[in-house]
Amino acid sequence: MNLFNNWDVYFMKKAISQALISYDNGDVPVGAVIVKDNEIISYGRNRKEEKRNALLHAEIEALNKAIKILGDWRLKGCKMYVTCEPCIMCVGALLHCRLDEIVFGVNEPKFGGVISNARLFDIPYNHKIRYKYGLLADEIKNIMQQFFKELRK
Amino acid sequence: MNLFNNWDVYFMKKAISQALISYDNGDVPVGAVIVKDNEIISYGRNRKEEKRNALLHAEIEALNKAIKILGDWRLKGCKMYVTCEPCIMCVGALLHCRLDEIVFGVNEPKFGGVISNARLFDIPYNHKIRYKYGLLADEIKNIMQQFFKELRK
Repeated sequence: MNLFNNWDVYFMKKAISQALISYDNGDVPVGAVIVKDNEIISYGRNRKEEKRNALLHAEIEALNKAIKILGDWRLKGCKMYVTCEPCIMCVGALLHCRLDEIVFGVNEPKFGGVISNARLFDIPYNHKIRYKYGLLADEIKNIMQQFFKELRK
Repeated sequence: MNLFNNWDVYFMKKAISQALISYDNGDVPVGAVIVKDNEIISYGRNRKEEKRNALLHAEIEALNKAIKILGDWRLKGCKMYVTCEPCIMCVGALLHCRLDEIVFGVNEPKFGGVISNARLFDIPYNHKIRYKYGLLADEIKNIMQQFFKELRK
């Protein structure tokens, strides 16, 4: 069974485009988009080095923009596509904003908050977020490996 | 043994002052300060309702301000005083910024990320943050109970 459809691929490719901008700026390449009714309503990318701020993750930027656009912090009916597993901070943010679903590409073994050191969606919070992962994982993994290879040089 | 000294009380009272501004603005009263070398370098308060954004927790504001002031996201040697147990999002943010220590007043049974549904400081992350809690807890609890009592009216 294929977990993902053509729309999923389309939106994850848009998230990857965001990640590639981070890459060019010297930031760990992570990108995100938020989708409502099959339309992208906001974009985000990792800006930690660009803005010298460890809190400026792709997910946080996409969430803040979506909140502004919808005029509401309850992001009902919204879905996030993000290249990398959200960290514990971002999982908390996603729960606060009550998204419906997230789709991510690769896991983040250290700080990941979904399927890694912490599994925060397993805690019985009032709001539940569905999640799927592994979409375009090879492509995303290649980009990240290339980034870290260049960084070590 | 008393866990807290006069400085702790002084700084927590400053965090409570921030919480009271949130209270007056119709926001759940939570306040925070960040201290370095026994001096307050930044303040933060809950602005969820004020700015209609569920991510604007007191801790996040205090962290973003401290990052700006120090010109570095590594908040080495910094300590946060916050009236309420940080949620999972804020615990993640505190770890990203590598604070030395946090002191909080009351627990947050639902979304708390230190001693409640999630105990994220128990995960063996590279960075460790010391924590203490219970400081001025009765005073803080009274303020919160009063807030929710008025809200229900």
